[in-house]
Amino acid sequence: MTPEEMLDVAVGEARKGLAEGGIPIGAALFSADGVLLGSGRNRRVQNDDPSVHGETDAFRNAGRQRDYRSTVMVTTLSPCWYCSGLVRQFNIGAVLIGESRTFTGGHDWLAENGVAVTVLDDERCISMMTEFIEANPALWNEDIGVAQ
Amino acid sequence: MTPEEMLDVAVGEARKGLAEGGIPIGAALFSADGVLLGSGRNRRVQNDDPSVHGETDAFRNAGRQRDYRSTVMVTTLSPCWYCSGLVRQFNIGAVLIGESRTFTGGHDWLAENGVAVTVLDDERCISMMTEFIEANPALWNEDIGVAQ
Repeated sequence: MTPEEMLDVAVGEARKGLAEGGIPIGAALFSADGVLLGSGRNRRVQNDDPSVHGETDAFRNAGRQRDYRSTVMVTTLSPCWYCSGLVRQFNIGAVLIGESRTFTGGHDWLAENGVAVTVLDDERCISMMTEFIEANPALWNEDIGVAQ
Repeated sequence: MTPEEMLDVAVGEARKGLAEGGIPIGAALFSADGVLLGSGRNRRVQNDDPSVHGETDAFRNAGRQRDYRSTVMVTTLSPCWYCSGLVRQFNIGAVLIGESRTFTGGHDWLAENGVAVTVLDDERCISMMTEFIEANPALWNEDIGVAQ
């Protein structure tokens, strides 16, 4: 499975979230050999739940795993500190990121701590988040903890 | 409300978790003036959900807040990187910790980044986690991402 094909799964989740009226960030956790363990999306709006970011939803939906070192977390957007902390605590080995232009979280920190980080600069992800943030600045700020 | 009284709420959650067969870590989010916004506990075992740590459960149960800067996250145990990342991303202003002897997560990192961190070294928290880890090493390691 190519990185682009893995990202497609996360993009599909983000688009589902957008269609539901939510924040369009999607993620997926894959095994080293490309098996999808779980995917998910930001559900702040849909579930009225501030704790469900794309990455934490994918992590949850992958169920309990005994060893994350060979797994890959794919996400449409650079992971915030919350989601970066998830990656670091559970020793997820690699993070594949759609884009970090509209927001940059902790992916440099992850790289410094041994995580294999790839940023694809995917045009679909950039345009989806750019448009969403422009149309929904208050909701976006709420999701990243920026008080207004 | 004293720090000890705030910690009592988190200890109560941890004890509920223990009684349910879960990992005994509890947490609570308070407003600056001591109003309980939400409390919760680790639910890995109870919900078969690896994403629910004590702090993330308390954060969820507090609902969507517009400004976390004046809130206090109280937890029985030093927050892991996942939960430390949550605190940092949402600009939670203070963290009150029962103990950090059995496990030390990212609380020094939070302090370096402007979070007011207090560690109480509470004997109830120390003994509860010490006994739990001794009796359930595999489950504990699973919860902190240590592969076996």
